[in-house]
Amino acid sequence: MKLVTFEADGVRGFGVVRGEEVADLAAALGCRSLKEALAQGLDVAAWDRAAAAAPRHRLNAIRLLPPIDDPDKILCVGLNYANHAAESGNEQPPFPSIFVRFIDTFVGHERPVIAPANSEQFDFEGELAVVIGRKARQVRADEALSYVAGYTCMAENSVRDFQKHSRQATPGKNFPESGAVGPWIVTADEIADPSNLRLTTRVNGVVKQQESTKALVFSIPALIAYITQFTELRPGDIIATGTPAGVGSSRKPPEFLRPGDLIEIEVDGIGTLRNAVAAGA
Amino acid sequence: MKLVTFEADGVRGFGVVRGEEVADLAAALGCRSLKEALAQGLDVAAWDRAAAAAPRHRLNAIRLLPPIDDPDKILCVGLNYANHAAESGNEQPPFPSIFVRFIDTFVGHERPVIAPANSEQFDFEGELAVVIGRKARQVRADEALSYVAGYTCMAENSVRDFQKHSRQATPGKNFPESGAVGPWIVTADEIADPSNLRLTTRVNGVVKQQESTKALVFSIPALIAYITQFTELRPGDIIATGTPAGVGSSRKPPEFLRPGDLIEIEVDGIGTLRNAVAAGA
Repeated sequence: MKLVTFEADGVRGFGVVRGEEVADLAAALGCRSLKEALAQGLDVAAWDRAAAAAPRHRLNAIRLLPPIDDPDKILCVGLNYANHAAESGNEQPPFPSIFVRFIDTFVGHERPVIAPANSEQFDFEGELAVVIGRKARQVRADEALSYVAGYTCMAENSVRDFQKHSRQATPGKNFPESGAVGPWIVTADEIADPSNLRLTTRVNGVVKQQESTKALVFSIPALIAYITQFTELRPGDIIATGTPAGVGSSRKPPEFLRPGDLIEIEVDGIGTLRNAVAAGA
Repeated sequence: MKLVTFEADGVRGFGVVRGEEVADLAAALGCRSLKEALAQGLDVAAWDRAAAAAPRHRLNAIRLLPPIDDPDKILCVGLNYANHAAESGNEQPPFPSIFVRFIDTFVGHERPVIAPANSEQFDFEGELAVVIGRKARQVRADEALSYVAGYTCMAENSVRDFQKHSRQATPGKNFPESGAVGPWIVTADEIADPSNLRLTTRVNGVVKQQESTKALVFSIPALIAYITQFTELRPGDIIATGTPAGVGSSRKPPEFLRPGDLIEIEVDGIGTLRNAVAAGA
């Protein structure tokens, strides 16, 4: 099942993809956002029942937003592929390296991402992102996947000079609309093994990153176990699992993004998130 | 003027302190939170008019919450007093060191802060916090203070072992209810110079930190100018300006917080934020 948040005729909605259409579930489920719907803990049959009688939009007539556009927490993991830690000259930390992005740093599928006017070092980072389905606190790794609602693609793009201003990544990771997430959440029941998915980043059609999530230093269960040692995860919260080797700043010469470039992040079993780069004001 | 958010008889409200009472402004201003009220951009006279006819609660009969309990962004500055950077063995970064806390890491005045059960290194950090009053993006330092709604005290407490797991401070700064903010926001019109306030931290009545905000490496205008280079600040957003020397982890021997300890953060012209330490589950 593919879950989306969208804008149709200027109204925000959410729902489930049915072929070339989207069933709009806000009325059927009586809630305002996909985050709230996830919190109801519905099974696939309940989503299907709600979708059966729901109003439909044509997928090509709506604007996709980040599939969760009001999360409480977005936690991103740095240096979680050994080949990326190596190419960026960083030591692999003994624990997951966690920073935060605000939701206003993301756009949805096929919306432009904004290259900051005050930097020449806007870089791509393709990632698999995990969406939490129920409250999780002090969860063991062997039960962690039962807290996952589904998976999506993320362009966890970075502004490298600001990222390196201090040891904290926050500034380089929080420019408005610098990243993207989507197109949709594929529910966990359709992903047999999230630790065995091929992730590919293309810029202008050329493959720049390609790696299996097998190569994650800290697996998805390990990340959930670690994160829930210090914070509570809730429905709709997002964990960006990290980017593999191949980012622009580690290429010789470096290859930074320019307005007009096209970024595609593809994950097996999920789909392709596609965003053009536009110039910031 | 002192602005508060509170719970009275199980209902969340916000308002303005009047002597030993609080005028409850939710109905008068037609909004749900102090954040939304700040977004209305009222002047002091308009707050006074709203308060004149509003229902009152006795201050000692309500539970104070963090004065903004639904901010979009809480940005904290690390290493912003040279004596603290030195005592903690860190180099002073050339730009502000910025990390993020989630709002669920904070309690209000006189509520217990929670010492994590999975750490022995729970430490105090007294700070001056700035509350933003209107949208700010790419603001110059010389106009930055006009974006400030007011000031409050923060116990920006840290869990040192988790803070040092990687270069990112996120885990050590985000344990639930590990910090505190309040008791209230003192509006900017009452603080002649936020860069000349004495900040004092006491633990069990003993002064542990005492410094003037004159000693901030990056002043409040400089912080707002820097932060708004990479993100938009909005009404209710909070900037924690950093902690001076004297934290427990830098003492010889180290002095970590234990259940039953009492933390007080006092800032001249604002007041004293007081929280006991309780044991986590």
